[in-house]
Amino acid sequence: MLSKNRIKYINSLKIKKYRQLSQAFIVEGTKSVLELLDSDFTVEFVLATTEFQQKYSTISSQHKTLFETVTLQELQGLGSFQTNDSCLAVAKTKQNDFLCAENNEYVLVLDDVSDPGNLGTIIRIADWYGIKKIICSETTTDLYNPKVIAASKGSFTRVDLFYTCLPVYLAENAKSAMVGGAFLGGESLYDFSFSSKGGYIVMGNESNGVGAEVEAFVTHRITIPRFGEAESLNVGIATAVILDNMRRQMGAELKA
Amino acid sequence: MLSKNRIKYINSLKIKKYRQLSQAFIVEGTKSVLELLDSDFTVEFVLATTEFQQKYSTISSQHKTLFETVTLQELQGLGSFQTNDSCLAVAKTKQNDFLCAENNEYVLVLDDVSDPGNLGTIIRIADWYGIKKIICSETTTDLYNPKVIAASKGSFTRVDLFYTCLPVYLAENAKSAMVGGAFLGGESLYDFSFSSKGGYIVMGNESNGVGAEVEAFVTHRITIPRFGEAESLNVGIATAVILDNMRRQMGAELKA
Repeated sequence: MLSKNRIKYINSLKIKKYRQLSQAFIVEGTKSVLELLDSDFTVEFVLATTEFQQKYSTISSQHKTLFETVTLQELQGLGSFQTNDSCLAVAKTKQNDFLCAENNEYVLVLDDVSDPGNLGTIIRIADWYGIKKIICSETTTDLYNPKVIAASKGSFTRVDLFYTCLPVYLAENAKSAMVGGAFLGGESLYDFSFSSKGGYIVMGNESNGVGAEVEAFVTHRITIPRFGEAESLNVGIATAVILDNMRRQMGAELKA
Repeated sequence: MLSKNRIKYINSLKIKKYRQLSQAFIVEGTKSVLELLDSDFTVEFVLATTEFQQKYSTISSQHKTLFETVTLQELQGLGSFQTNDSCLAVAKTKQNDFLCAENNEYVLVLDDVSDPGNLGTIIRIADWYGIKKIICSETTTDLYNPKVIAASKGSFTRVDLFYTCLPVYLAENAKSAMVGGAFLGGESLYDFSFSSKGGYIVMGNESNGVGAEVEAFVTHRITIPRFGEAESLNVGIATAVILDNMRRQMGAELKA
């Protein structure tokens, strides 16, 4: 039986202010909770149905002290989480002190990505294409928003995010690096040569694109070729297409 | 002042059964309504604020008989449409009798894509990459769902959809054509040669992929190379990456 305090605590974590105060966040759904338990996040507790614990008995006995048995009704009563099936966990947030591109690495930079679904999708795409670090403007939506965590499909456990003031960060850390940005009217993505030294790939806000202050640091303006009439692509889609072209090219260079 | 009957009619169009009965659907938001008015859809009426009609005075006077002036409060009271800013239109649905790949054309085939946001995004991507036709299984979510229309960002006016029984359709229409499908463990997308004769590209359900009955018609199994650890990509993202590779290759062939 869930205590009132625990219900109150979980509900508070839907709000950024309380996530920051408690330094904790919610993870829901089987896939995400299993990936969380397999990661280096510190888990506070897992609420799971008897069925879940029977189905994943090895994992639930391995983390026995973390588990509390609840009914499906209790889980569903916890709120507006659409993906919640048979488990919900609360874990401690992690704050990365500093992240930058190292050893021919490509790093994503997000300037004011505001939709939680988009940020979660971008984290999942980064994970698919082997991008380990994402540098976010302070205006980019909070990683620990339950919708971001849900949309990342467990990839939040493998990709690190660092929130910072982008103009200051880029001035200090991207001096001699390639900083590619997605813009209309730039060089065709198909002709663009990604530097084998790695660098930064900047994606902008859903409505306004990359802001002027960040644009000043962009060394290469890249455009995704268009063959039809849609005015634009969603920022998640654009990120995937750019990373796919980068990896295809890098792969070819490795083989050559 | 909006009549009760009109409010009732608009609300009924949120439900598929009533859209089919009335053969009509809702379009909301400035961009989508402007694209609708510029398309060959038959528009029943447009509800718009005075500000909207002043801002787009050429268009609103050109379609004067269609416009009814409403307040922002009235529009917002019409329901759950998140993207609704200052206008909402109702138009007649179109039923395409039959569509297939012609003249070296590539056509998308969707087997049970169930999320409205995903279908809308796929329509927008198709429009970006110059795909004019999408063949959908009867289980694929309804094009005229307001969430599909909203997510397509106006591209529903330029891409035609045809709902049919896919196994019957493919048996009759794809006999000698390339039918590429996205699968794990297939040929790398980077090595795959898209036929210059065009063909069909099949994308499957969000959880279950392409169904067995449709898979039987797939002549080429294509896999998007993965460089990290995410288990899968969203169907919209996968569609974009495949179409991007197809167009890049076709473009190069045109140049050669």
